[in-house]
Amino acid sequence: MEKRIITISREFGSGGRTIAKTLAERLGLTYYDKELVKQVAIETGLDQQFVSDESEYAPSKSAFAYNFQEGLLGGLCAADILWDMQRKVILQLADKEPCVIVGRNADYILKDRADCLRVFIHADTSFRAERIVRLYGETEKTPEERLKDKDAKRRINYKHFTEKEWGMSQNYHISLNSGVIGIDKCVDIIADLFTGQRNPVNK
Amino acid sequence: MEKRIITISREFGSGGRTIAKTLAERLGLTYYDKELVKQVAIETGLDQQFVSDESEYAPSKSAFAYNFQEGLLGGLCAADILWDMQRKVILQLADKEPCVIVGRNADYILKDRADCLRVFIHADTSFRAERIVRLYGETEKTPEERLKDKDAKRRINYKHFTEKEWGMSQNYHISLNSGVIGIDKCVDIIADLFTGQRNPVNK
Repeated sequence: MEKRIITISREFGSGGRTIAKTLAERLGLTYYDKELVKQVAIETGLDQQFVSDESEYAPSKSAFAYNFQEGLLGGLCAADILWDMQRKVILQLADKEPCVIVGRNADYILKDRADCLRVFIHADTSFRAERIVRLYGETEKTPEERLKDKDAKRRINYKHFTEKEWGMSQNYHISLNSGVIGIDKCVDIIADLFTGQRNPVNK
Repeated sequence: MEKRIITISREFGSGGRTIAKTLAERLGLTYYDKELVKQVAIETGLDQQFVSDESEYAPSKSAFAYNFQEGLLGGLCAADILWDMQRKVILQLADKEPCVIVGRNADYILKDRADCLRVFIHADTSFRAERIVRLYGETEKTPEERLKDKDAKRRINYKHFTEKEWGMSQNYHISLNSGVIGIDKCVDIIADLFTGQRNPVNK
């Protein structure tokens, strides 16, 4: 079964985005992360920062309230419109070209496509806490609070729109602990799987 | 970080046991599945079939009632005694020699050991249904009912004793869909990971 697309779902700070970028470079696939946000913002007419904030986190009060202020499309709130548009854009991108898509529940949106390899990256709190401070700096919250907060929002968003549990092995073809396995080794395993599956001889 | 032990947790019919056996042969590790049941039966004095039935499925009424009929150890029911003894045997085996342990919540029991590689194997219902009929034959229940029943019992048992969700990616270092990836390829990935982690040069 030939794979053309990789979706990378990830815990905050686990290195999922780095893994996704490296895979895209190594395998010659288009990388979609912020570019996807931009496309959704253009299609919906919503502010790019708003799309970025809301597109994979728990629908916020402002996302649900947006329609009351702005009177958008017949009673649908911004969170629903965003979901529909994001879904449409992801399906279009998957049709268009081989690619790696980070987050945005793409694993669920593309679950019926046989050519999609669905990956989940996670790691222990200590590994992720050290990483987010090193990469994104300190904030007024502790790194542990930031991790808990972001993961909770992604979990709620996933549950809200997919009715499934974010991080359940069964939602993905492969789940990896990047802290124990190492980010480079995760890339090797996924690249090998992707390449092997494009060539049944290596199966 | 050198790994000495592999735990394989698995959905019924996913080929987890086949993967575990093949890994043990290829890597020269002792394989524990039914042998573990035998040891627990000897240590507890409980019937081997009873241990086998109860050791990784939802504690049954008979396991909870056992103490009332038999008056075992100061109010503890057979399910609790079994759990304690199974835990003790698994910790002893892990200390004794490099090994592969199938099921029995060994991933949770050995979660604090840095030398343990924790694996979860799952697959789609259609793959597993075909497999259990081919390997274990037909029964009066449909294959789908048998899968649902066994998985539910394992899930309840895991939740009861570990307070965690069976199958959540975060409980394991690697989770694989054997139906999509293929049983042989799962063995290759895990063996490579295990061998690579014993030799940091390959990391």
